[in-house]
Amino acid sequence: MITRLSQYFVKTLREDPADAEVPSHKWLVRAGYVRRIGPGIYTMLPLGQKVYNKIEQVVREELNAIGAQEMRIPALLPREPFEISNRWEEYGPTLFRLKDRKSADYLLAPTHEEMFTLAVKDLCSSYKDLPLILYHITPKYRDEARPRAGLLRGREFIMEDSYSFDVDDEGLKAAYEKHRTAYMRIMDRLGLKYTMVQAMAGAMGGSRSEEFLIEAEAGEDTFVVSPAGFAANVEAVRITPPAEQDFSEVGPVQVVDTPGTPTIVDLVERINADHPRERAWEAADTLKNLVFKVTDAEGKKSVLIVGLPGDREVDEKRLEAQLEPAVAEPFTDEDFAQYPVLVKGYIGPVKVVDGQAVQILGEESESGIRYVVDPRVVKGTRWVTGANEVDKHQLDVVYGRDFTADGVLDVAEVRDGDPAPDGSGPLKLARGIELGHIFQLGRKYAKALDLKVLDRNGKLVTVTMGSYGFGVSRAVAVIAEKTCDAKGLAWPRTVAPFDLHIVTAGKGEEIAQTAEKLAAELSEAGIDVLIDDRNVSPGVKFADAELIGIPTSLVIGRGLKNGTVEVKDRASLSSAEVPVETAVSVLIQTVKG
Amino acid sequence: MITRLSQYFVKTLREDPADAEVPSHKWLVRAGYVRRIGPGIYTMLPLGQKVYNKIEQVVREELNAIGAQEMRIPALLPREPFEISNRWEEYGPTLFRLKDRKSADYLLAPTHEEMFTLAVKDLCSSYKDLPLILYHITPKYRDEARPRAGLLRGREFIMEDSYSFDVDDEGLKAAYEKHRTAYMRIMDRLGLKYTMVQAMAGAMGGSRSEEFLIEAEAGEDTFVVSPAGFAANVEAVRITPPAEQDFSEVGPVQVVDTPGTPTIVDLVERINADHPRERAWEAADTLKNLVFKVTDAEGKKSVLIVGLPGDREVDEKRLEAQLEPAVAEPFTDEDFAQYPVLVKGYIGPVKVVDGQAVQILGEESESGIRYVVDPRVVKGTRWVTGANEVDKHQLDVVYGRDFTADGVLDVAEVRDGDPAPDGSGPLKLARGIELGHIFQLGRKYAKALDLKVLDRNGKLVTVTMGSYGFGVSRAVAVIAEKTCDAKGLAWPRTVAPFDLHIVTAGKGEEIAQTAEKLAAELSEAGIDVLIDDRNVSPGVKFADAELIGIPTSLVIGRGLKNGTVEVKDRASLSSAEVPVETAVSVLIQTVKG
Repeated sequence: MITRLSQYFVKTLREDPADAEVPSHKWLVRAGYVRRIGPGIYTMLPLGQKVYNKIEQVVREELNAIGAQEMRIPALLPREPFEISNRWEEYGPTLFRLKDRKSADYLLAPTHEEMFTLAVKDLCSSYKDLPLILYHITPKYRDEARPRAGLLRGREFIMEDSYSFDVDDEGLKAAYEKHRTAYMRIMDRLGLKYTMVQAMAGAMGGSRSEEFLIEAEAGEDTFVVSPAGFAANVEAVRITPPAEQDFSEVGPVQVVDTPGTPTIVDLVERINADHPRERAWEAADTLKNLVFKVTDAEGKKSVLIVGLPGDREVDEKRLEAQLEPAVAEPFTDEDFAQYPVLVKGYIGPVKVVDGQAVQILGEESESGIRYVVDPRVVKGTRWVTGANEVDKHQLDVVYGRDFTADGVLDVAEVRDGDPAPDGSGPLKLARGIELGHIFQLGRKYAKALDLKVLDRNGKLVTVTMGSYGFGVSRAVAVIAEKTCDAKGLAWPRTVAPFDLHIVTAGKGEEIAQTAEKLAAELSEAGIDVLIDDRNVSPGVKFADAELIGIPTSLVIGRGLKNGTVEVKDRASLSSAEVPVETAVSVLIQTVKG
Repeated sequence: MITRLSQYFVKTLREDPADAEVPSHKWLVRAGYVRRIGPGIYTMLPLGQKVYNKIEQVVREELNAIGAQEMRIPALLPREPFEISNRWEEYGPTLFRLKDRKSADYLLAPTHEEMFTLAVKDLCSSYKDLPLILYHITPKYRDEARPRAGLLRGREFIMEDSYSFDVDDEGLKAAYEKHRTAYMRIMDRLGLKYTMVQAMAGAMGGSRSEEFLIEAEAGEDTFVVSPAGFAANVEAVRITPPAEQDFSEVGPVQVVDTPGTPTIVDLVERINADHPRERAWEAADTLKNLVFKVTDAEGKKSVLIVGLPGDREVDEKRLEAQLEPAVAEPFTDEDFAQYPVLVKGYIGPVKVVDGQAVQILGEESESGIRYVVDPRVVKGTRWVTGANEVDKHQLDVVYGRDFTADGVLDVAEVRDGDPAPDGSGPLKLARGIELGHIFQLGRKYAKALDLKVLDRNGKLVTVTMGSYGFGVSRAVAVIAEKTCDAKGLAWPRTVAPFDLHIVTAGKGEEIAQTAEKLAAELSEAGIDVLIDDRNVSPGVKFADAELIGIPTSLVIGRGLKNGTVEVKDRASLSSAEVPVETAVSVLIQTVKG
């Protein structure tokens, strides 16, 4: 195929778009691959569509290779199945809801667990009908609060999602492994380096789950890697608790005056001034108690207090993931007004009454308020914490002696340098873009929608499921993000919109004729050629070639009178003079070799 | 590829689905190609998806071959562009509308004229950027009042839609011809016989327009064909008016008593009884005057009376197409109550006052009510019509002498045997399914959305557009409809989900081993094989093979002990014994030859 730039639907821009936050977005817009229609809604222009089609084909081939069967479930779906699974409510404002002409409720599917479950329930009745892996590649819809970065987080996007159905856990594990392999092969074929991280199952429920993250500044996911290669989403990191400590030498709880110290910084300063000790007091010696209002899936509200070392903040995403499907909001002043027992800025688990420490937080305590602590709060650790009176704190409050908690909640922020859970050294924090996600869903959806089959013994058993997703339209942006440079895009050959970009530099019949002749021969050899036949300066052509990012360019210009043309490599920006007679064979070798 | 039926996501049904109105729907459900999710919302199962993918690829190849450029505009779109083109209102309840989390208005696109127009406006500024043909293959949404027939009229369906952009009419004609050719080639490759009919432009506005109809009982479109091959949608048929008649011998209007004759049947009987003449009076001698309430695009209401021969009814679709974007409803009794001048059942254009015929219908008349007539009502024709009094009619009311009309409206039903507009003889009526539609849109959308480019002389000119659509998911059903028989589906090779269906009939190692060996050799040769390895009776396997409709089957059974296997042709239901040694070469020849 030969495509002429003069007739192609593309317009390159010299200026960065105003809303471009990340390099891939900027270059995809400037090079004419995508255009914005509305918030999180993008048109794929012909250049972008060519890249997309190639990625989709790779995904389809690798899914077919593991025996997955392609089908297609619509995006416009009735409310009922999502009502049963509770996701009609759970999705909140992220779900696009609409009514049809008869006022029946519909939604635009963000994902298809319910519908695939029902499809299998509809067609299968026996263990003999399983295992099954089904998939489709379709537009998905999420009404993101903050759509951003072009194709990276859109409100309409195209995803490949697969679902596996098995009678037993071994089957699920096998299907999970197959997808793991398929997604790894897809990433490899797309030239993407990825990190597989342990992930929380999030809104999907279920058990084992891994994400395929592509390390990038533009990423919205934070993950950690240990020196030994353990990698996890921050949501999934589980702190290894420190060893228990001997507290036999620790004196009783002391109440001390700490006027004007509702914050940790003020408190540490005051204690170091008034109660100096050999090792200075640090924020990590204090126990901060944060109060949240929790709303569970049924809408029931309760109060939760989280105790954690004063040098750590609660990580919102970790908290969200741990509490799901419940949601937590910080206590407001109005909320505090309703709980006089909680003295804002001076909350602690213990009150000293007649010289005795009495626990006042926790379900079994007088207040009855649920109290959980960070895993670092282990038996024998001693803390500086609030005395439940304004301007007063307590020293030497010992966990396991003076107070205990209703449970452990691992929601403090993870920091670069924290010890890795695998004990191999300090954790490294990085940002990444989620491109694939594999889940062992288990029986959650099958139970909710009553998907059962007869097993070998004629007994009805609930089917176990996996769900797997790969962001096909997002991959266009991710590959752009990882390969672009200061001049524009630089596609790997597997997904480049064209194999070769021919540029004529200079006027004259001979240059144009040579370009056409070489283009024809190369096209004949199966090379997909873009030829810049526009009546613009060589400078504009070179700049656009670098912007558009076809892996190889052939420049036909001044050298021609000496019998040479120039072959340029987009990624390395290197070039070589080649005799015009050997140009075709050199290029075939370069492009196809 | 070898696919095993025992592991394939398909379940054939022995019973017809309750809601199947047409053969294709019945067989596609029974053979496991599609499943219903909700009204007009269907899942494509793996068998259906394989057929769909093949059709999509044919469509893509032929569009690319005319230089059309594939891209993709989302389905979820903001309201504004459709507000400008007035289609936000015009589509009425057929448009799926929704709001996002910020309460902004969105829609699910039924078609993309506005968005492609804006995309070109965004990227193009000069005649040098044109001509352009752009297309995409995406889900479309229409909230049909009566979704029916499975994939034939769904609420979510996949369509290929193209848009052409040119500076002048010659360019538009060329783009139109290209699409005509591309769609003809697509139909040919899909093995579909089609009729190209003249069509009204319908809701799209614009001028020339043709439909590709596939003749089928299940079709919703009625079209006519003349002996000379002229074909048109009934909406597009234009009656050739008869010659004017000499009325010099006709006496003056007579008012006659016709008690109890509000209907044409009663009237004709009464007149033949009371006023017999040589040739009996017929319904065609009467002039029926039907009253409609018309609402125009701006919502303004008015009254319209249509006069037409009493033997014809108004064809609703023709009326709708002629009045568009206005809509007409028949007058109700309440409406009549507000217009005492209109005597229901006895309406006529003329009143006799003092022996003189005075016209009382028409914009210039006393009533001021707009009055239009069928094209058969020409100068000199004489009619029996209402006298505007209960139980009274008039004879010898002559058009051009006693009354005239405000215009001609060609909305009477077209009948089998009516004279063809091309004069070649009687028209034949048929029903068809619309699979493709090509439109010369002209400048309607470009004007509305202000798409202009600089022409050769540096002057801004409005771009002229074409729009073209092919129903890709509908094609699955149409091909099924045209090829199915009493036993099930019978796909043409180009779109069949598999090339070959291998059936083992009978037990024994040798049969199973031979089947596996042949399957492996055929797969190796590039044949896509479905092998029925289920542990069910040969009868069930044969019935399912006929239901599923792969073009060729290979039966390995009793003949094997004599060294033969059976090759069956699904379409003709014929079969041949073939020596097992030559089976592979025979099948390669059959499938690929």
